[in-house]
Amino acid sequence: MNEKFLKRLKDEFGIVFQNISLLEQAFTHSSYVNEHRGNRLSDNERIEFLGDAVLELTISRYLFEHYPEMSEGKLTRFRATIVCEASFSQFAKELGFDKEIRLGRGEEQMNGRKRSALLCDLFESFVGALYLDQGLDAVLDFLKQFVFPKIKAGAFSHVMDYKTQLQEWLQKNGEVLIQYQILEEVGPAHEKQFVVAVIADGKELATGSGKTKKAAEQAAAETALKNEKV
Amino acid sequence: MNEKFLKRLKDEFGIVFQNISLLEQAFTHSSYVNEHRGNRLSDNERIEFLGDAVLELTISRYLFEHYPEMSEGKLTRFRATIVCEASFSQFAKELGFDKEIRLGRGEEQMNGRKRSALLCDLFESFVGALYLDQGLDAVLDFLKQFVFPKIKAGAFSHVMDYKTQLQEWLQKNGEVLIQYQILEEVGPAHEKQFVVAVIADGKELATGSGKTKKAAEQAAAETALKNEKV
Repeated sequence: MNEKFLKRLKDEFGIVFQNISLLEQAFTHSSYVNEHRGNRLSDNERIEFLGDAVLELTISRYLFEHYPEMSEGKLTRFRATIVCEASFSQFAKELGFDKEIRLGRGEEQMNGRKRSALLCDLFESFVGALYLDQGLDAVLDFLKQFVFPKIKAGAFSHVMDYKTQLQEWLQKNGEVLIQYQILEEVGPAHEKQFVVAVIADGKELATGSGKTKKAAEQAAAETALKNEKV
Repeated sequence: MNEKFLKRLKDEFGIVFQNISLLEQAFTHSSYVNEHRGNRLSDNERIEFLGDAVLELTISRYLFEHYPEMSEGKLTRFRATIVCEASFSQFAKELGFDKEIRLGRGEEQMNGRKRSALLCDLFESFVGALYLDQGLDAVLDFLKQFVFPKIKAGAFSHVMDYKTQLQEWLQKNGEVLIQYQILEEVGPAHEKQFVVAVIADGKELATGSGKTKKAAEQAAAETALKNEKV
C-alpha cells in the first residue's frame, strides 16, 4: 500500500492495520486479480459482503440510540438514505480510496475508478477489513469520526419531516427542549384551523397554521427552519 | 412474562434478561399497544429494526468464516435463504414465541398469532432485545445453540450447488479432505467427455461425467449425495 495513504489513515483516524494484507485485499478489485492469476491474490468481494452487514448494524444502532422517538418505518427510510451506493461512494471519494484501489487494465480504461458501484463496494470492503482486523469497536470508532458527524449535521435529513429536521438541527450541539403549543383553534369542527407555535428552550421560533394540529406543527417547524436558513 | 417461558429460556439457552421490560417490549405487538393506550406501552417495532441488522451481521460473519471458499455471490444467496421471513417465522414457532406475544383483539381474531410476517418480526425483536440487554456476544451464544447448528446440518443448503452441499454434509462433524480426480477425458476437443471421481479422505464416493470438468464434478457430487441418501 501507498505509505502516504497509510500515514493518512493513522493521522486522521488513528487506524493502523495489524494485518496489512487484509487492507490490501480490501483495495483489490476482481479485475486486478483476473489479470494477475499467477500471484494468488484475493479480491475484495467477500470482505465487502461482511462490511455491508457491519455498516448496516453500526448505523442502525446509531440511529436507534439518537432518534429515540422515531418510528421503525422512519428509521428504515432514514437508514436507507445512509446505507446506499450514493452515500458510500461519496465517502470513498472523500477518503481518497479511489486513488488506492488496484484495478485491471480493462476496468481502468472503462473509467472504473470513478464508477459509483465500485466506490461503494470499496467503502464497504474497507470497513469489512477493519472489522476483521480489529473488531466492531474499531469500526465504531472510525464511524464516530467520519460518518456519525455527517448524520448529526443533517447531511441525510432531506428525507425527514420538518419536525424531525428541526429537532436534529437544534440538538446538533446537545439537548434542547422543543415544545409545540397551540395558540389558536378556530372554526367549526369540519373546518377547524389550528395555529401552533414551536418553542425551543422557552424561546418562540415560529408559528404555523393548518387544518390539523399535526399539519400546523409541521408548518411551524418548516418556517423555523427557513428562518434559521438551514 | 409467563414464568414457564422465562424458565425455558434459562434452561435451554442460559438466557436471563437483566432488563425484563426489554423482553416484554419485544413480545408486544403494535395492535396491543393501540388497545391499551392508557398504559404507555411500547411495541416491538423499533427493537425489531435493530434485531434485523444484528441477525444480518452475525449470520454473515458465520457464513464468511465457515465457507472460506464460497464466492460473494453465493454467500449473498445463501444468507438470503436464512435471513428471511420463512426461516425466522419457523424459528419463532419452534421457540414457542407465538404463544407469548401480546396481540390486540382484532389481530388475534384475524389469526395474527399464526401470521408468518408477524412471527418473523417477533424473532427479530427477540434478538434485538437480547442485543440491547446483553450485547453481541450473548446473541452469538444464542445463535450458536439455536441457528448455526441448523446451517451446519444443511437446513438451508437446497440453494447450493451439489459440490457445496456435499462438502457441507461431509464436513458436518469436522474437516474432511475432498478431492475431485479426472478418471477419463475422451473424444475430440469440440465433443469432449470428462469422467471424474469424488474422493473423501481417500475413499471414492462416486463418479460422474459431463462435457466440462466442472459439469462432471457436479454430477459426481450429485451421485455421492444420492448414494448417501442425504
